[in-house]
Parts: sequence; structure tokens; C-alpha cells
Amino acid sequence: MDRRGFVTTGMAAGLAGVTGAGSALAPLLSPRNGLGRGRTSVNDAIRLSSNENPLGLSPAAREAVIESLVNANRYPFSFSGPLYEALTEHLGVKRENVTLGAGSTEILRMAVHAWSGPAVPLVVAEPTFEDVLDYQSPLSYDLIKVPLTPDHAHDLARMRQTVHDMGNRPSVIYLCNPNNPTGTLTPSAEVDAWIEDAPETVMFLVDEAYYEYADHPDYWSAIRWIEDKPNVIVARTFSKIYGMAGLRLGYAVAHPSAIRRLDDFVCQNNPNIPANAAATASLKDAGLIERSVAVNAESKEIVHTTLDELGLEYLPSETNFIMHRVNGELSTYRDRMAERGLLVGRDFPPMMDWNRLSFGTPAEMDQWASAIKDFRGKGWI
Amino acid sequence: MDRRGFVTTGMAAGLAGVTGAGSALAPLLSPRNGLGRGRTSVNDAIRLSSNENPLGLSPAAREAVIESLVNANRYPFSFSGPLYEALTEHLGVKRENVTLGAGSTEILRMAVHAWSGPAVPLVVAEPTFEDVLDYQSPLSYDLIKVPLTPDHAHDLARMRQTVHDMGNRPSVIYLCNPNNPTGTLTPSAEVDAWIEDAPETVMFLVDEAYYEYADHPDYWSAIRWIEDKPNVIVARTFSKIYGMAGLRLGYAVAHPSAIRRLDDFVCQNNPNIPANAAATASLKDAGLIERSVAVNAESKEIVHTTLDELGLEYLPSETNFIMHRVNGELSTYRDRMAERGLLVGRDFPPMMDWNRLSFGTPAEMDQWASAIKDFRGKGWI
Repeated sequence: MDRRGFVTTGMAAGLAGVTGAGSALAPLLSPRNGLGRGRTSVNDAIRLSSNENPLGLSPAAREAVIESLVNANRYPFSFSGPLYEALTEHLGVKRENVTLGAGSTEILRMAVHAWSGPAVPLVVAEPTFEDVLDYQSPLSYDLIKVPLTPDHAHDLARMRQTVHDMGNRPSVIYLCNPNNPTGTLTPSAEVDAWIEDAPETVMFLVDEAYYEYADHPDYWSAIRWIEDKPNVIVARTFSKIYGMAGLRLGYAVAHPSAIRRLDDFVCQNNPNIPANAAATASLKDAGLIERSVAVNAESKEIVHTTLDELGLEYLPSETNFIMHRVNGELSTYRDRMAERGLLVGRDFPPMMDWNRLSFGTPAEMDQWASAIKDFRGKGWI
Repeated sequence: MDRRGFVTTGMAAGLAGVTGAGSALAPLLSPRNGLGRGRTSVNDAIRLSSNENPLGLSPAAREAVIESLVNANRYPFSFSGPLYEALTEHLGVKRENVTLGAGSTEILRMAVHAWSGPAVPLVVAEPTFEDVLDYQSPLSYDLIKVPLTPDHAHDLARMRQTVHDMGNRPSVIYLCNPNNPTGTLTPSAEVDAWIEDAPETVMFLVDEAYYEYADHPDYWSAIRWIEDKPNVIVARTFSKIYGMAGLRLGYAVAHPSAIRRLDDFVCQNNPNIPANAAATASLKDAGLIERSVAVNAESKEIVHTTLDELGLEYLPSETNFIMHRVNGELSTYRDRMAERGLLVGRDFPPMMDWNRLSFGTPAEMDQWASAIKDFRGKGWI
């Protein structure tokens, strides 16, 4: 596809190339109706740094939030019934298999607070999503970081060996799959093999924040284990595919015994009423996931084409972001992008020659493509 | 004031009797414009059981929430600047003296997680607000309950003696002032005397959720200590006077060292964007507190008059609820009220002959008054 043609004819036409539904998607991509990518946060820059969904709330979710405000003065405890109903139906699980949190990060917090302890180390990949580390850090319990494989998968063999070498004592294993910040998969069959063999004192905390974006035959959800294994917790979120990062809603799917233990550590009166309403409406918005996936695929294609053209290495992404080489100092690259009104990435040591780029709308990715090509012209990249 | 006259002429006229501003308040009390008391939660009952503000969100806050939804797909971290600015100005404190949580309950959670431990007991009144107990319960650390005085104040002398008898070892002292569920004050001069004498290893967690409703010469905020004492944390909320219980926003005011320690235990990405927007707008809504206080006073007067007429004992309330005798089985009383469409109270052991009644709108309290008078006619109360 000709990217200049895309810019000229606008986003709707660009999307039509991928989805055949340009006219239906076009209103969602317009910032005018209050549903589009939204205002951005810093000096009107375009935020391609936080793995957010550029489509914003779905129109149905927006209406549901506004309708819910009549109850904004009420504590939420008696309002979450319909959400639990819609969510358990969507997942095909029972009520006792689910609990809600203020984003999947609260699920991670609850799990770290509930299971990690003086005799229970937390075992994580490096690099991976930082929130579990933030929650562990003030507790001063053991944290064990295991570098990713050369393929940027979790090094399950080495993680298993580490737990084995500690005498198989109770541990919490954090598996972010697909992994943030690399966007890469750890083959689900390998995860399954470990779960199948592990003693139940090894707790698997599987973060599937990007589950809905992944499309690969080697990948499936760890939810399949929740009937048989009390030591598997799957964390999911409404922040990504549902475009609700600002409303704060996530959930855990697990064996009832694990859910009960998580609930001991929940912050009272979650979820908030607007998030509750938006999530319920989003689950019933049949085309929402497809729209988000289609826009994301279009943006990914723009980024792939650009990086290929520039000969910049990138990792295979199964998410709404991508990790790519920058050929030079990362902070300088980011500063220069910021000067162009584009916020891209942050540090993810030890990958200090790579930038994590979130996928915005196709039009936003065209702006990024134009900027990075200029950088090449100036010999900056 | 003639209560029948009040019912007949409507809420605006009733409010005018107290505030002289009936015409300004009337629209706020109408359920028609989506700003009033809101739908209620269970079978269309009126909820007088959760100490909520019956006025709902302020119109300015509602508008701000709707405007904020364009950013609902963005993580909140870069959106809280204006709220911190408005809040620190409102409180007259510095930025480093404040942190936000998902309701004041998250402040309580963070404090329990940050300070309580194997060698650090939690000392609380009985009865008091239950959330601290919920957060402490899975930790299996020592919990010490000290009954209220006959005046329903915290028994500070006995609490102090308890800490002293443990060799003044580190402790967390939870003081809910005014106290929930009793609505009563603990004289601030007595609290101050203990804070002044206590070693800094004794952490005071002062819950001022109902601060704005209290109006008594013996009561003032513990915020006065935050410059000098690193061991005083004040928890406040937007759930009560600001009518935002469903949005989840609270805050801690404390010495910077205490704020930093609390922040180690915060759930990432709080506060959510609608709560952030509503709180900022509410702080700038000059008449909001006065309106909430005026409506509450009017409702309290209706309840006082009714209980006096029936000769039912009640505690002096400095909050938006009241504890009163029911002369009979508490659960039977509640069930009968529920049959009349009124949800009132819950169990607060050991006060099992008392019901905690939240103040709704004056019209709602008239419904309650009518019901409880009928109960007297039937010999039920």
C-alpha cells in the first residue's frame, strides 16, 4: 500500500484497505466527535509510549459511562452484577473464577501481596513489565531476574532450573505473555509443560494484558488451567483492546481458592462505577475487538514497512507495540521524536539500543514514519 | 418546622427554611435532570445505609467527567497535575504532603500494608470503620480492639495504656474522627496530647472521612501535625461531602517521609481519569460544601425531631449519618424498613440494639419518618 496515498485520502480509506469497513470505522478515528484518539497529555504531543488504544472508548461504552453518572455518589458494591455476568459469559467461566481490580495492575499487586513473602521469591523475566517489581520492591523479599532467551521468549528452562535449585520451595513465577516491552510470545505449550509438572506451591501469575492482539498458532491462554490447578492466576485488562486505560479495570481468572486469596488483598469498593459501566457495554459491543485489531494491524503494517525500508531490526510483535533498534543513543532519539510532537518509549534495561513504540492510529504512525525517515536523512539513525 | 408542610411544599421550600437559598438548591434535589439522588441499587429502594451524599455529583463535576472521557483510553499518570494543584491549595499544604488513592480506603490499605507487621500491632476502637480490619485480617499480625468510652469517643487513655504496656513498641493507631458508625467525636485536644507525647514509632492513622460535616468547637483536623510529626497520616475522601463515592478518590495528608512510604504501596495508575476530573471541578465549585452541609443539616433535623417524638435514644452526630436505638431485633427492623423501600444500616457489633441511619435528602428522610412512626403504631419499635 502506498503510504502517501494513505495520508492523502485519509484514515477511513486507509482502514478500508485492511478491513473493507472504512465507512464504519471512519467516525471512530475522527477526533471531532469526542470519541477519537483523544487529547494528548504533554504539549499536545501524540502519545506512542504507553501502549494505549488510539480509538478511545467505544461509543457504547461512552454512553454507558454518562448514563452511570447518576449513581456516581453511590458506592459501587451493588452495581457490579451485570459486569460479572457479561464477563463470565465472555470468558466461559464461573463467577467464582473471577475477581476485578483497578486495572490488571491491581491483580498483580494483590498476587504479590498475597503470595510473595520471606520464604517465597518472585521469579521474573528481564526485561518484563515493571509493575510486579514495583509491588515487590518495598517488601524486601527475594526477587530473581532471568534474562529472556535470544528469541525474546521467557527462558522457561532456566526459570525452572532456578526454582529447582532452590529445592522447589514456594515461589511466584511472573509470566507476561505476550511480553511487555518486547511484544514477543513465549510458546504456550512450554508454559503448559511447566504448569503441568510444577508442584502447587509454585504459583504462576500469567499476565495476558495483550491477549486479544496476539494471533499465532503457538499461543493460547493459560485460562485452560483454572479448573485443575489452584496455582495459576491469569491477569487480563480492559486498558488495551477495550481502550479503557484511564478508567482502571482489570480482572483475574483463576481457581476459586486463588480468587478467594486474591480477594483478601483487594482494595475495597472496586471497580469504580464508570469503569464498571464502560466494561459491561464494551463486552456487549460485538465489533469492538475486531475494530481495535484492524486498526492495530494497519498501524503495524506502516511501522513494519518503514523499519524494513530503513533496515532497522525489530522484534515480531503480537501486541499493540513493537520493539525496534534505534542505532544510537536512545534518549537522544526520544528527545528528537518529542521535538516532532511524538512521545515514544521509555528505558527498558538492558535493551538500551531498542525503543518500544506503541501503535497509534494509522495517521499517527504516518507522522512517526515521516519523522524517522527525516532522521535517517540527517544521519541520526 | 412542620414536617407535613415540608412534604407538601416540596424540598426547595424545606431547604429554604434552613439555607435561605431554596431556589438555587431545588434543581440539585430533582432526580429528573440526572443530577439528583440517583437511581438506587436494590429493587429501587432508597439507600440510607452507606453514608452517601444524596445530592450526587455536582453539575460542574458531571460536566468535567464527560469532558474527560476523550482521554479515557489514556493512562492517568500525566493528568493529575491540576488536581494536585487544586487540592494542595485547598488544604494549604505542599505537593510532597499529599498522595492520592482509590478512595480513602486505599490510603488505609496502603498504611496497613506499609506499617503493620509481625512486631507492629494495629490498635483500633470498637466499633469503628471496618476497612482497616479487612486489610489487617489476612496478615495475621496483632489486632487490638479497645471499646469506645461511654460517651462513644475513642478511649484514648486505654489505647495509650495498651501501647505503653507493650513497652511502647511500634504500633499503628487507627483513629476514625468523627467515628463511623457512631458519628461521634473524639476531642481533638486529647488526640493532640497523645500525638505530642508519643514516640515517632507510634504511627497515627487519622481517618477524617467526615471532617467537612463536623461542626464542634472541640474538633479540628490532625493535619496541623504534618510539619512536625512524621508519624501522623490523615486520610480524607471525595466520597462524602463531594458526592463521589462511585468514582473512587481519596487522599492522604502527611509528612513527606510518610507520603513516600505510602507511595511504595500504592496501586499503579491511580486515580482514574473521571475521578480526577470530577475532584478538580468539585474543589473549584465554591458552593458545593455549603450545599451538602445544608441538605445534611435539614435531614438531620427531620431525624432528630422524629426520634425525639418517639423517645428513641440517639447519639450526637457530627457526620451524614446517625446511630439510634431500635427497641427490638435489629435485623427485623431493617427487614421491615426494606419492605417499605428503605435500606437502613447494617450490623456494627457490639452495638446490636442500634441502627446506623444515613441521611438522604429531606424528602427521603420524611419517608423514613413516616415508616418508623407507622412501626410505633404497630408496636414494633
